[in-house]
Amino acid sequence: MLRWQTAGESHGEALVAMIEGLPAGVEIRTDDVVSALARRRLGYGRGARMKFEQDKVRLLTGVRHGSTLGSPVAIEIANTEWPKWTEVMSADPLDHDLPREGRNAPLSRPRPGHADLTGMRKYGFDDARPVLERSSARETASRVALGAVAAKFLEQAAGIRTVAHVLSIGGAGVDETAADRVLPTPDDVAALDASPVRTLDKAAEERMIRRIDEIKANADTVGGVIEVIAYGVPAGLGTYVESDRRLDAALASAVMGIQAIKGVEIGDGFLEAVRPGSAAHDEMVPGDDGRITRLTNRAGGIEGGMSNGEPIRVRAAMKPIPSIPRALRTVDVANGDAAQAINQRSDSTAVPAASVVAEAMVRLTLAKFVLEKFGGDSVTETRRNMESYLASWPEHMR
Amino acid sequence: MLRWQTAGESHGEALVAMIEGLPAGVEIRTDDVVSALARRRLGYGRGARMKFEQDKVRLLTGVRHGSTLGSPVAIEIANTEWPKWTEVMSADPLDHDLPREGRNAPLSRPRPGHADLTGMRKYGFDDARPVLERSSARETASRVALGAVAAKFLEQAAGIRTVAHVLSIGGAGVDETAADRVLPTPDDVAALDASPVRTLDKAAEERMIRRIDEIKANADTVGGVIEVIAYGVPAGLGTYVESDRRLDAALASAVMGIQAIKGVEIGDGFLEAVRPGSAAHDEMVPGDDGRITRLTNRAGGIEGGMSNGEPIRVRAAMKPIPSIPRALRTVDVANGDAAQAINQRSDSTAVPAASVVAEAMVRLTLAKFVLEKFGGDSVTETRRNMESYLASWPEHMR
Amino acid sequence: MLRWQTAGESHGEALVAMIEGLPAGVEIRTDDVVSALARRRLGYGRGARMKFEQDKVRLLTGVRHGSTLGSPVAIEIANTEWPKWTEVMSADPLDHDLPREGRNAPLSRPRPGHADLTGMRKYGFDDARPVLERSSARETASRVALGAVAAKFLEQAAGIRTVAHVLSIGGAGVDETAADRVLPTPDDVAALDASPVRTLDKAAEERMIRRIDEIKANADTVGGVIEVIAYGVPAGLGTYVESDRRLDAALASAVMGIQAIKGVEIGDGFLEAVRPGSAAHDEMVPGDDGRITRLTNRAGGIEGGMSNGEPIRVRAAMKPIPSIPRALRTVDVANGDAAQAINQRSDSTAVPAASVVAEAMVRLTLAKFVLEKFGGDSVTETRRNMESYLASWPEHMR
Amino acid sequence: MLRWQTAGESHGEALVAMIEGLPAGVEIRTDDVVSALARRRLGYGRGARMKFEQDKVRLLTGVRHGSTLGSPVAIEIANTEWPKWTEVMSADPLDHDLPREGRNAPLSRPRPGHADLTGMRKYGFDDARPVLERSSARETASRVALGAVAAKFLEQAAGIRTVAHVLSIGGAGVDETAADRVLPTPDDVAALDASPVRTLDKAAEERMIRRIDEIKANADTVGGVIEVIAYGVPAGLGTYVESDRRLDAALASAVMGIQAIKGVEIGDGFLEAVRPGSAAHDEMVPGDDGRITRLTNRAGGIEGGMSNGEPIRVRAAMKPIPSIPRALRTVDVANGDAAQAINQRSDSTAVPAASVVAEAMVRLTLAKFVLEKFGGDSVTETRRNMESYLASWPEHMR
Repeated sequence: MLRWQTAGESHGEALVAMIEGLPAGVEIRTDDVVSALARRRLGYGRGARMKFEQDKVRLLTGVRHGSTLGSPVAIEIANTEWPKWTEVMSADPLDHDLPREGRNAPLSRPRPGHADLTGMRKYGFDDARPVLERSSARETASRVALGAVAAKFLEQAAGIRTVAHVLSIGGAGVDETAADRVLPTPDDVAALDASPVRTLDKAAEERMIRRIDEIKANADTVGGVIEVIAYGVPAGLGTYVESDRRLDAALASAVMGIQAIKGVEIGDGFLEAVRPGSAAHDEMVPGDDGRITRLTNRAGGIEGGMSNGEPIRVRAAMKPIPSIPRALRTVDVANGDAAQAINQRSDSTAVPAASVVAEAMVRLTLAKFVLEKFGGDSVTETRRNMESYLASWPEHMR
Repeated sequence: MLRWQTAGESHGEALVAMIEGLPAGVEIRTDDVVSALARRRLGYGRGARMKFEQDKVRLLTGVRHGSTLGSPVAIEIANTEWPKWTEVMSADPLDHDLPREGRNAPLSRPRPGHADLTGMRKYGFDDARPVLERSSARETASRVALGAVAAKFLEQAAGIRTVAHVLSIGGAGVDETAADRVLPTPDDVAALDASPVRTLDKAAEERMIRRIDEIKANADTVGGVIEVIAYGVPAGLGTYVESDRRLDAALASAVMGIQAIKGVEIGDGFLEAVRPGSAAHDEMVPGDDGRITRLTNRAGGIEGGMSNGEPIRVRAAMKPIPSIPRALRTVDVANGDAAQAINQRSDSTAVPAASVVAEAMVRLTLAKFVLEKFGGDSVTETRRNMESYLASWPEHMR
Repeated sequence: MLRWQTAGESHGEALVAMIEGLPAGVEIRTDDVVSALARRRLGYGRGARMKFEQDKVRLLTGVRHGSTLGSPVAIEIANTEWPKWTEVMSADPLDHDLPREGRNAPLSRPRPGHADLTGMRKYGFDDARPVLERSSARETASRVALGAVAAKFLEQAAGIRTVAHVLSIGGAGVDETAADRVLPTPDDVAALDASPVRTLDKAAEERMIRRIDEIKANADTVGGVIEVIAYGVPAGLGTYVESDRRLDAALASAVMGIQAIKGVEIGDGFLEAVRPGSAAHDEMVPGDDGRITRLTNRAGGIEGGMSNGEPIRVRAAMKPIPSIPRALRTVDVANGDAAQAINQRSDSTAVPAASVVAEAMVRLTLAKFVLEKFGGDSVTETRRNMESYLASWPEHMR
Repeated sequence: MLRWQTAGESHGEALVAMIEGLPAGVEIRTDDVVSALARRRLGYGRGARMKFEQDKVRLLTGVRHGSTLGSPVAIEIANTEWPKWTEVMSADPLDHDLPREGRNAPLSRPRPGHADLTGMRKYGFDDARPVLERSSARETASRVALGAVAAKFLEQAAGIRTVAHVLSIGGAGVDETAADRVLPTPDDVAALDASPVRTLDKAAEERMIRRIDEIKANADTVGGVIEVIAYGVPAGLGTYVESDRRLDAALASAVMGIQAIKGVEIGDGFLEAVRPGSAAHDEMVPGDDGRITRLTNRAGGIEGGMSNGEPIRVRAAMKPIPSIPRALRTVDVANGDAAQAINQRSDSTAVPAASVVAEAMVRLTLAKFVLEKFGGDSVTETRRNMESYLASWPEHMR
């Protein structure tokens, strides 16, 4: 059973990510995590960005000489800004009073769209600082780090590779009805990294950039739609026998659980609610190679809650960043008065980054399901079990 | 910790649903379950329907004199057609050969859109019978039964009530942009039950029925979009602190885990990916009653992965039933030849029923989160804990 | 992931047991469950026993023609005494008043050693009836039924077989220091079934029976020590990498979670706390067959939280049945007065039965760990994965 | 739901411990963790011990100004010996060959009593280094750190306090039959810390020290029996309704899951298997204070799988350290030859330390059960819920 957990506050000393249940023998290096984190920092429409410093990632446990040990892997991502926050975010009490101003000013005007107000109510805080420290999207760096580990496992044990891209920003983007549309593959990752909005479609790229520029000019923010595609997933991950073991349910949970995501689709998603049944499923024919071949992949690689051997496509809708230069109305909980929400960020959109986070969650989810089906305590064992499973299918069922 | 499990094959002796972790003192009767099951059987576009027989539901455990005992509740839903299937679906081996024909004919032509092919590969069957027996939507009756129990708990312990309705079928339905649009409330349940397509909007109802009629005339099937709304949910269920404890993630999993669901939205969902940030969040103002008041509910009652006190809205897209009179192309796995998928059902759509199933899953999920936040081993205790939590909020945070 | 759940009250309509995550293709019949249940009913020192009626067990789901389907298995064990209890234990409210006397008399004098008092406090009951209905050892019948299913899986997928026996009753029993002592094997099950106290040691049997007779003559009750041994468990189930995934921890939990068990040992257990290290471990030598051979099995087949290939031995201490003819002192919670606890049973000891229940829990636990290590959705797949794992060990590590 | 995880190798850069689900407002400081770790390092019979350096513990996340934030708490315990191991245990591959000698010598002679042989088989290693790095008792430092956090929560939210002591070493120790025997309480912790073998009984202390001296003179090792007692636990934690939610099962799992533990008892444990029922339970009488009073506590505070309000007593048997100066026989898996196991440690016993680890596991388990029963996202809320529960008991049930 693969399980993971993240910890850390936005301005705390470090983020810590931990993953347990990973087989031994996964080849992984610090650089793999650093690269994944760098990818998360890309994207048009971000504000001032720190240059990422490689030495701030440490694989603290579970890896030796570039190979996992089967024991839990803990990754520390140090906060390079920590020196500015040592007092405000100190774990231990300070031996002196800290003025409630500047970085330590109480945040009593909860921002709409954020966890602020409910977080204060739930945990009994009179200030939103502890809430935003943890609810911030900074936390997703931990998930991307874990996703990088999962990616290595998936590729080495099962030949599964993933790719994430952006479909649209604020309604502008890829024309999904275009007849000649081609989905990106894992071989396109470098090209996607090079695009400021993570797309291979140059016309769509231009439309998205224009949309972001408009939004920025309006002192506003904007969301968008992203897609993660997983290639090489063997048929039979997940199951129809119990609803909480379905792969689609798990992917929906993993992706909806990302900050600011408000919708998730598998395959053609909501479009399937419009089509007639005769044009909504993926017919099968005997292929030239003797294997059963699908004519389409509307299901996004999942039927009956299981991977069916086709590429898995998961899409998600991200709402606009709620920290908006044009401040939103709120209430000051210190006195009950009407107020304006403060705005601490200058990003116009984080959609490209969100696609990278979603990819991490898809990777982690697939890794969990691979291990559930095939077991194994070493990459060799998991791969051997998968291969013998695939080889066991009767001739006409391949 | 609330947990539940269902069991049972479509043509087996009975379905069995079990729920564990429910406090003592929930008032529930067999009739409550029977009514919920009857509601699931409603809806325009269904084929021949069996009249439901009340005496076939048994609360086998965990309830005494109309009140839960704190111990696990097991519900049996007997299969009224069982006499026809005793041999084909016998648990024990038969003492004679059963001809592989009629109800016992091997199903070697997997139906696109169903679990058939992957199920055979995964579990090592040479026949799809064991797959379709469990992957069939018949299983959802167990979930609806459990949802009826959860509903009683939610109402009695927390004053939470839910309602489910249909937004559209095959693209036809409610005009969601209409200025005077009103969301249904739990008081509208009888009216929704009376609508053949579970809507309060008479014009939309007409459009949906027309769409179903067209589809049926074409020997086709159709899906649609449904919505579940939960009222009275206190702020603070779920949390931003860890992604797998977010309420939105859990709802997405619960609803995506229903047969044929391909997309899930919280609140305005994918529409949020188009709007600018200034029009995407729910501003707060001091209310006339001294309480913080929201001007909108685009977030669907969830911010930061937590209920925020507004009605929770979950929407889902259902694909068309894959058993289509106009048979789809497939491959006969007995010999590898091209073939036509068989079609055993005559329903044109099951969207109204799916809304009832989705409501059940939302109820179960909310019940789990209520118990996680408030604890309690009796309805009285859970309610007391919730009330003292709400009373503990500072004056200006209410 | 294998998981299971039981439901049902002692005098309710039925017990229901459910197990989920079992691969397809496990050969199991109703008779296997019936036999296991019959074994639980054996044992010297029991009071009047009902003759078990075979037709009262139903494999309601998950099994077809004697083979599991991969879907959840639900087993119903009907209560043959139910006609006497239909009113007192009715799930629905009655349409008339039920006098609070006889079977329906309120139980306000909590019995020491039982769940009564705390159960009432916890769940908010003013009567111990709902507590004893569920806390009763009757529930263990569900576990034994599930254990029978697990046993079939273990044997068919992994060649693992178990045996349970009694070591002592009230301090009288097997001389564990005897040089010629031989542990029972699965081939001895029939002989153990034939012993009134589940032992192969005739002298010990006599001592135990004498002890029970003494106890009974004193209108008292008595506990004892039992042992479950599992043969054929491959090395490598469980793990040292995280404490909650250790096999010893899981076995301890499974066995301590049986009613009336107060102590659990793996291998030589508490005796290991007395021995010097040089006489406490299991030395290894090259065996004649070229395999690494252990000189002893003090560890009971578990080192580092993992099965090490030797027989797994789990022992448990059972306290005396707390329903004692010589009534114990208690307090009547209706009025706070000193009182005598009522006594509804006439058993002197249930130790032989407890060994059967413990065996069921060990079986379920091992089945879970086999699936965690080897995965697999069919018996064939799990076995294939296990065999290829064993074959993968380097020559000198076998 | 409280959950925790540890990570880290014995000679790795650091141990990392993480706990999630803890309410906000638990007052905890770095010093509390440092003190707990120091306590684990005490004890007669240990070899050369490093002086613990306070600055090596960091509360990396989840705590601010001495108070938990409700978010996950991650604690890093740096390895002060790390400079000696940077190459041998480097996470990344080295850019040069590392001679397989000294600290990097392959360990091909698995030590009996350790995880070595099975760990290599399971994870596919040809060397025991990765196994012993994680299976080492060094990992228990992480648990003690987490236990220190749990202790603060227990005391602040529920008034629960614990104490751990040693009953015997190698069979020598406390006379448990002594009429005047007094159990230690949390107020005795300083006195227990001052005892080299964690006992208040001076005669027993002398016997235990003598036993350790004998063992050491024999170049041998020795185990013993420890006990953890928890005071102030409210009645009603855990439940009889489902076996995996019983408190006794959870405690057994938590304690058996500690390295080298081979037996666990609740209350009088195995002694209960000898006594007659009339002398095995805890009778109740009306107390002078109007509350129900127990005459004994043989059950160790748990009846029916629930805390019953009496002190909870958990005992455990620890086997001798398997790294024995008088080397044990083994097989060299590099060539299949008979060999002697290497011995890297010089401790004679670790029983006093084990009691501190067991206390940590009991604390974590109780914290989990407190949160399951009472819920709550802040210490204030959990305490309020507990207090209102206790106040809700009817007068004669107190």
